[in-house]
Amino acid sequence: MSNMKKSLKAHLIFIGSELLKGKSNTYPPLFCSELSLLGIEVIKETSLPDDINLIANEIKSAYKTADIILVTGGLGPTFDDITREAASKALGLKLIPSHKIFMEIKKRFEKYKRPMTENNISQVNILEGATAISNDFGTAPGQYLEITDGKRFKKQFIAFLPGPLIEWKPMFDKTVKPQLINFFAIKTKTQTMELKITDIGESAAEELLRPVIEKFKTASFTILSSPGNLRFQVSVRDGKIPKIKSECKKILGDKIYGTDGDTLEKVIGIKLKKAGLTLAIAESCTGGLISHKITEIPGSSKYFLGGVNAYSNKLKQKLLGVKTQTLKKYGAVSNQCASEMARGIAKVTGSDYSLAVTGVAGPSGGTKQKPVGTVFIAVSIKGKKTIVHQHYLSGNRSIVKLRAANAALNIIRLAL
Amino acid sequence: MSNMKKSLKAHLIFIGSELLKGKSNTYPPLFCSELSLLGIEVIKETSLPDDINLIANEIKSAYKTADIILVTGGLGPTFDDITREAASKALGLKLIPSHKIFMEIKKRFEKYKRPMTENNISQVNILEGATAISNDFGTAPGQYLEITDGKRFKKQFIAFLPGPLIEWKPMFDKTVKPQLINFFAIKTKTQTMELKITDIGESAAEELLRPVIEKFKTASFTILSSPGNLRFQVSVRDGKIPKIKSECKKILGDKIYGTDGDTLEKVIGIKLKKAGLTLAIAESCTGGLISHKITEIPGSSKYFLGGVNAYSNKLKQKLLGVKTQTLKKYGAVSNQCASEMARGIAKVTGSDYSLAVTGVAGPSGGTKQKPVGTVFIAVSIKGKKTIVHQHYLSGNRSIVKLRAANAALNIIRLAL
Repeated sequence: MSNMKKSLKAHLIFIGSELLKGKSNTYPPLFCSELSLLGIEVIKETSLPDDINLIANEIKSAYKTADIILVTGGLGPTFDDITREAASKALGLKLIPSHKIFMEIKKRFEKYKRPMTENNISQVNILEGATAISNDFGTAPGQYLEITDGKRFKKQFIAFLPGPLIEWKPMFDKTVKPQLINFFAIKTKTQTMELKITDIGESAAEELLRPVIEKFKTASFTILSSPGNLRFQVSVRDGKIPKIKSECKKILGDKIYGTDGDTLEKVIGIKLKKAGLTLAIAESCTGGLISHKITEIPGSSKYFLGGVNAYSNKLKQKLLGVKTQTLKKYGAVSNQCASEMARGIAKVTGSDYSLAVTGVAGPSGGTKQKPVGTVFIAVSIKGKKTIVHQHYLSGNRSIVKLRAANAALNIIRLAL
Repeated sequence: MSNMKKSLKAHLIFIGSELLKGKSNTYPPLFCSELSLLGIEVIKETSLPDDINLIANEIKSAYKTADIILVTGGLGPTFDDITREAASKALGLKLIPSHKIFMEIKKRFEKYKRPMTENNISQVNILEGATAISNDFGTAPGQYLEITDGKRFKKQFIAFLPGPLIEWKPMFDKTVKPQLINFFAIKTKTQTMELKITDIGESAAEELLRPVIEKFKTASFTILSSPGNLRFQVSVRDGKIPKIKSECKKILGDKIYGTDGDTLEKVIGIKLKKAGLTLAIAESCTGGLISHKITEIPGSSKYFLGGVNAYSNKLKQKLLGVKTQTLKKYGAVSNQCASEMARGIAKVTGSDYSLAVTGVAGPSGGTKQKPVGTVFIAVSIKGKKTIVHQHYLSGNRSIVKLRAANAALNIIRLAL
């Protein structure tokens, strides 16, 4: 939800039939972060096939609602590249050949010793009143229009860029961005922060954070959720980030484990490294996922000794010293087994901290007493008592594994 | 390009401020391929922030141009989830509480022993005349509307699905898709196949497959690439799938490891189960990723005994019996160490097949002789000689781990 006042609004339009036939569009995030840094709010993103009417209608509609319209794709030389024609139709502006662009394209063909085809001629056309943007990496030129006599807006900016990233990115950086800053006299930069939150559900977190959301009316907030992890994004234009952060911390306490690029495994790594401590892990139902996460961090070999994926009971006994009696009496999914696994891996590795996880990931293996999602997490700290936490986690097999891994990482984080 | 006559036209709308703030939307390709299978043409894709007016306007506009409107996201329990309200506004339909959905959500909260919050109550509302779609993996129910008295269209179909893939995908498969087929009496089906390919790069595969692509002119082909994995998608309307498959197999041989839903770990699992064999894994640089992948498959405890994440040399020696002399003379990243690790884990677990991986994942740790990306993969089969493969893999730490894991899984697949 955006509460920002008077921010410039942008509409992104991507042209290309392939985008509606299964090709992923990786560009929106790139444009969005660039624009967000300028304090520009993206209010709509559209992908359209190479259809002149659909494109013209969308440009027309964008022209009524957005200060800034960025159209990418459909400027190439082939028959289906009709963005120029669609824009001409939508905006009621003639297409006029640009001598400058003609010379640039001609030079390019001479350089690569290829003949200029008739198709390329259509590329030299630009909209009446537009400024051409040279393309250093391809034949399709871009163009932008600065409109100062619009009916609904004092100022409007429309740019057309070619589809390939290697072509549009330099044109955006060198021309479109400076031109936007200049045309709209953009000064203030939006500050952003992402709080990383765990051990609480999306709706519970939102209810707790509502006073903050309601208090800071000029800020914009978003909650993103994935299994065992929440990201609370804050974007505000007037230096209020530290204040907002401290209010969130007052509410959520140590459920907030970091900001921006932090992950649970990264935070744990920093703490272990700083304290000169080591970690070892015995996994059953998570099957190696926790160790995989820990070892995603460069330099983790400094504090991570390794561990055992004790999927079978035999391995739990042989490598971790889990007692036959424990398995018989309580089963592999039990407080007792988790505890023995954690102490076992600590003994084998000599680690300062150790972690053990055993549970029912599903879909089969659940019982009435221990349904799918039942997970025991044990932490053992050198010289201290081993502590076991019991969780009931929802989701399919993959999600239970992921939630269990995140819960285990969080338990280690809090223990450090 | 679509050659189909009178095809049904769909407009996809994705809701979520995060999509306009830098989060990539990976869903359009998934929806597009599903709809293309039904002969439905996607004519527009839109992403919108959680803004009731923007959403309502887009639904209104889609209602004028598309036979099918699929709206995803904004059905959750938090303040910024306002898709339901926007749809009510756009379509002039009241929101009515659904008793069925209320009971489902209530049951869900009871199952996980969590209290139902007031936020969750808003989720029970559905549009007048709509049918609720149960959500087996979350609290946000979906809904669909079948309209048979529209002014511009004889029939129109509008569905609302929750944002997370794990939630909307089963709802799409179980309800939306069959409902679309039924409502529009969709008959002709495009046949599709996805070949799963490993151990070859994207451009090399494309060059080899070019004769197939050129021969079958009525088919459409797409290659999707991820580290150590290619997906070759084929879509054709005249029963040529078996012929295309056999021609691809002639060219790529056992680099093709499966079709459609297959993964390397799934294929391995099926082979091991069928043969009644067991597997154990010793990981160093992959840090648990291979075991994690293996244990993503339901029922993997039948053949996967577990293993050791021997990140430290001490653990390699203590649990896997790697010799001090080997580490001194050849180092931990060596043919000899990989081989001893594979034999060591086989000895400890008594497994029929064992796998060991040791290498330099980076970013540090590389040398001139063993640069970052150097990986040794050993396979040990009961009663046979241990074989070691050496790889040089490209990419950052995460990608090297992923490529190494896929290479190791492929080696086991070929050994089985």
